[in-house]
Amino acid sequence: MQFHHHGYVSGDPRIQPAAGVGIDRPAELPDLVDVLIVGSGPAGMIAAAQLSQFPGITTRIVERRGGRLAIGQADGIQARSVETFQAFGFAERIIAEAYRITEMAFWKPDPNDPTKIARAARAVDDPTGISEFPHLIVNQARVLDYFAEVMAGSPTRMVPDYGYEFSRLHVDEAGEHPVTVTLVHTAGERAGQERTVRAKYVLGADGARSKVRDSIGCTLAGDQANHAWGVMDVLVVTDFPDIRTKCAIQSGAGGNILLIPREGGHLFRMYVDLGEVAADDAGRVRETTIEQIIDKANEIMHPYHLDVRNVAWHSVYEVGHRLTDRFDDVPLDEVGSRTPRVFIAGDACHTHSAKAGQGMNVSMQDGFNLGWKLGHVLEGRSPESLLSTYSAERQVIAKNLIDFDKEWSSLMAARPDELADPTELEDFYVRTAEFPAGFMTQYPPSLLIGEAHDQALATGFPIGKRFKSAVVTRVCDANPIHLGHHATADGRWRIYVFADEARAGEDSPTSRLAEWIARSPESPVVAHTPEGADAGAWFDVKVIYQQDHTGVDMGSVHEAFKPRVGPFELIDYEKVYAADPAADIFELRGIDRAGAIVIVRPDQYVANVLPLTATSELAEFFRPIMGAVSPQTTSSTASTSISTAMPPSRMRQATGLANTGAR
Amino acid sequence: MQFHHHGYVSGDPRIQPAAGVGIDRPAELPDLVDVLIVGSGPAGMIAAAQLSQFPGITTRIVERRGGRLAIGQADGIQARSVETFQAFGFAERIIAEAYRITEMAFWKPDPNDPTKIARAARAVDDPTGISEFPHLIVNQARVLDYFAEVMAGSPTRMVPDYGYEFSRLHVDEAGEHPVTVTLVHTAGERAGQERTVRAKYVLGADGARSKVRDSIGCTLAGDQANHAWGVMDVLVVTDFPDIRTKCAIQSGAGGNILLIPREGGHLFRMYVDLGEVAADDAGRVRETTIEQIIDKANEIMHPYHLDVRNVAWHSVYEVGHRLTDRFDDVPLDEVGSRTPRVFIAGDACHTHSAKAGQGMNVSMQDGFNLGWKLGHVLEGRSPESLLSTYSAERQVIAKNLIDFDKEWSSLMAARPDELADPTELEDFYVRTAEFPAGFMTQYPPSLLIGEAHDQALATGFPIGKRFKSAVVTRVCDANPIHLGHHATADGRWRIYVFADEARAGEDSPTSRLAEWIARSPESPVVAHTPEGADAGAWFDVKVIYQQDHTGVDMGSVHEAFKPRVGPFELIDYEKVYAADPAADIFELRGIDRAGAIVIVRPDQYVANVLPLTATSELAEFFRPIMGAVSPQTTSSTASTSISTAMPPSRMRQATGLANTGAR
Repeated sequence: MQFHHHGYVSGDPRIQPAAGVGIDRPAELPDLVDVLIVGSGPAGMIAAAQLSQFPGITTRIVERRGGRLAIGQADGIQARSVETFQAFGFAERIIAEAYRITEMAFWKPDPNDPTKIARAARAVDDPTGISEFPHLIVNQARVLDYFAEVMAGSPTRMVPDYGYEFSRLHVDEAGEHPVTVTLVHTAGERAGQERTVRAKYVLGADGARSKVRDSIGCTLAGDQANHAWGVMDVLVVTDFPDIRTKCAIQSGAGGNILLIPREGGHLFRMYVDLGEVAADDAGRVRETTIEQIIDKANEIMHPYHLDVRNVAWHSVYEVGHRLTDRFDDVPLDEVGSRTPRVFIAGDACHTHSAKAGQGMNVSMQDGFNLGWKLGHVLEGRSPESLLSTYSAERQVIAKNLIDFDKEWSSLMAARPDELADPTELEDFYVRTAEFPAGFMTQYPPSLLIGEAHDQALATGFPIGKRFKSAVVTRVCDANPIHLGHHATADGRWRIYVFADEARAGEDSPTSRLAEWIARSPESPVVAHTPEGADAGAWFDVKVIYQQDHTGVDMGSVHEAFKPRVGPFELIDYEKVYAADPAADIFELRGIDRAGAIVIVRPDQYVANVLPLTATSELAEFFRPIMGAVSPQTTSSTASTSISTAMPPSRMRQATGLANTGAR
Repeated sequence: MQFHHHGYVSGDPRIQPAAGVGIDRPAELPDLVDVLIVGSGPAGMIAAAQLSQFPGITTRIVERRGGRLAIGQADGIQARSVETFQAFGFAERIIAEAYRITEMAFWKPDPNDPTKIARAARAVDDPTGISEFPHLIVNQARVLDYFAEVMAGSPTRMVPDYGYEFSRLHVDEAGEHPVTVTLVHTAGERAGQERTVRAKYVLGADGARSKVRDSIGCTLAGDQANHAWGVMDVLVVTDFPDIRTKCAIQSGAGGNILLIPREGGHLFRMYVDLGEVAADDAGRVRETTIEQIIDKANEIMHPYHLDVRNVAWHSVYEVGHRLTDRFDDVPLDEVGSRTPRVFIAGDACHTHSAKAGQGMNVSMQDGFNLGWKLGHVLEGRSPESLLSTYSAERQVIAKNLIDFDKEWSSLMAARPDELADPTELEDFYVRTAEFPAGFMTQYPPSLLIGEAHDQALATGFPIGKRFKSAVVTRVCDANPIHLGHHATADGRWRIYVFADEARAGEDSPTSRLAEWIARSPESPVVAHTPEGADAGAWFDVKVIYQQDHTGVDMGSVHEAFKPRVGPFELIDYEKVYAADPAADIFELRGIDRAGAIVIVRPDQYVANVLPLTATSELAEFFRPIMGAVSPQTTSSTASTSISTAMPPSRMRQATGLANTGAR
């Protein structure tokens, strides 16, 4: 965490100074906004939290409810989501209050007496160390609270606008704010009254019954065969010994339970199989009472017993697997001919069972994927074509999720005698662990993802997959640092220079690359960073040497890796790293001893791997992504528009995002 | 973190429900209080934060300043303090924003050119892994902020009362509130007006010029020979390569610097040697300007240069080593004949150099030592004689500190040619590392510390030293848990039962001890827990089995280790642990395979080690500590006084402190 570089910060360094539109942010929803987000669930809130880091962008997030979510809904947090929380600064805190899954137990009919269940197997949750972060269970309400805290402490001081329901929208062909959205007040004196807001872009994160989706002519398509589950969050006294362990329980008489222990040491969630829903059910299954759910659970759990002392929440839901064919307002036959203005994310795009614990996680990655792209386009860093990559990248991920969940939820709902092999369920769980942990996402080559010509130079950083962090030593203070944990959600591209074998200061491919990065007009840092902004404002350039930290002389390190920051032009020492001999990142991530450049997107996905000598490829990679605007123009506009409110330097401090006022 | 056991908690589980005196806490300082703390520095704030956990106790903390501390003063945080922060729930957060010391560098005159300095040595800060927590540097202001947050989220909703200066106090011989304190308003309309508060106990944490100390006839005694240092917190551009590393710098021409990098990646503190202060100096050294300090620093740093861009804070101080002979109002010749009513802590008791980074740390341990004792006496858990152990335990610690600091600060101020050996400074640093890390404290046998008859049963838990945590596996959910991290600052005694080799449920010394703990009238849990309170309200009893977690059947574990909690009488599963085969706590802490009982105080110090069969010794250990009051009486009084405000169960939820209203 870096601070004090614009002068002494006395209070909580996590609370950034208000800047740009955050300085006099109107409490009332304004008539004109840059981005209007509909729905304050996980997809909407992460997109809002990301956009809140851009001081020049007015983002508002409207929610039908009158206030924060109190209880219920999703609770599974895959390790990829915890990595993402780290980028937003609250991983440690949510880990401390969450339930952590380290094992899963599988209970089946006792072979000696199939009327009873018995523990058949245990499976370790993450045997391969797929992430340095754990797999968690915590109520969605707390996840949203943390994102709200990030927004509130951001330069833009963003707060959700509660009490507005989306009604309809209209997209004009031209104009500064082409999307006209009609909202309806849901509470207070104006309840029932309509309200119009005009936006440059709209994100519909308004759930499975999304009206934003309807308004852009998208439909959810997929199977209509439904299986019903009773779900309850309860406080119980029981003799079941694994009550604090995640369990899949299959009874002999038929009937299945998924048991998910919850945060706090006492509460748990149970998904209780209520069977196939008849085609003519007409919603009757939803009238299943909590008493019926508990009775059914006790049947399945025999010989163990649940004495339910308190019911915190319960519901009945029917599983359907449905998906939209696009995530924005550009019909598939018009892709490439125009760029989108309206997007949808999360449950608005994909619905499926809750039991793989995926929904909230995939939804958040939807919002994380879109947030920075909207920021970059609205700031003029990038062309509007960037926005077409959102639907292209995320729709296929949702398709994969639904395929996975169909298989998992069928296995979960099967009777033991329906399985080809008695261990089919646990085998599937172990075999596919990378998917539910969130690490199977691999974006294909595109504007944002390079072809894997030089993948061999860094085999542990597959192009298109998320950057898997490892520990290195920060040279200036000999601190062990998780390299990826500096990739905070600040909207910056990252360029990691893994050095060749030469020492710092020696003439080498690394030092020649450093010189090019710092001085060449072709260098993305030189070409695309706005004039007057800190060198690190848009690009975070780091070097990792092969020597241990005592073998790197800070005085000899090229200034490309020691950029000046802030009004005092201080040296940023936190760009220079050394391999930790006890766990060498070059070994762990398969990095060639000749060195490599690894380019990482603002949402933590590896965009490209290049040789240290590939300066023209590096320039060419960024040209179409960043080449939309002349940085000089951007800079001067920004300085003018912002400087009346606060010194640009102070504004930059807020986020490491420089001169972000202009569009 | 345990919650939901009194019903669903929707918001931040760290914010405990208001209870007892916190329900209608008056914003204005009341006329009668249980404890009045004078001074909101580290000693006062930790004592207040500890007392804030006792719902029935009215504690107020007054501070001369009009608001929170903004800058300056102490910044060294030893690992023992970070352990303590963990107990108060904010270790992870302060670690994330602090500077972490992993190495110290020693710079000396270059042997080839003594007009220049050169790096002579590096020393790893904690080579032996003395704690799982790091050594940190962070401004005292942030430490105080975190304690304020703990207090605000506590059942008593405590907030410091700013704007009151202590004037004098008077102790009556009798009465409910025998200490009459006169305060003076320092701000607002009433500035200059006097205000009287009557208290049961007073803690003076009002610094080196303590008026509380003066009011009880204590004086600081010690050397008057002073050495002056200029201290500055600055933002600098420099070519000195170790500017982000802790350094002791000795120049050839004489003159020394201690460089302490600070939080945020840019700021650092520098202690610059200003030499011996002449006896007739009359404070002139304090007029040294910041420019003079910077010039002197640049002389010492030659050939490197500091270009100071911003000065956040600076001061000149003179080192004196002074100590009081007692920490309370009972003269040494009256000890044992009466119990104290007024205490002093922190700089009020001990002053010394800042350069070993000890002051804030030792002061916090003063306050932590006293806080729970006041809580237990005021609640009627313990006799007043408990309070005499505070001065007895802490005065000798302060004496040790001053002896250590004299040696360290003399070495720091020495010219290279004055040292017996050129490596004397770094040798001393490495040799004595345990002391400044805070782990040399070992309380001698007393009311609270047993004789070490059975120390051989657990050699890694020395009686009188702090309980050194290790990782174990929580059986119920297979989570790796740092056993000591459950020892939160909730005022409870802890009884760790390290099991013999038998399995859970088998007849064994462990199961016989469990039966005794749960049922014998002699058991401290049975004898001293108030009637109607949860079994774990005053004693936290845990078991650690020698098998791995798959070898412990939760269904067979004795109910002494599965106590019921809260209004729903839920089972607390978080008392049952298993050794982690990869790092077996029995091996790591030298625990006999026949098992052992380890008793740990509310402030984390090991109070006794006993065999599993030593039930009568266990009973006898607690009898004088807890035997002051009949628990039946306490309980019924508490229920009466509290139940009008809220259900006792809900009050208990707040802290794990049961029925705490009665005194």
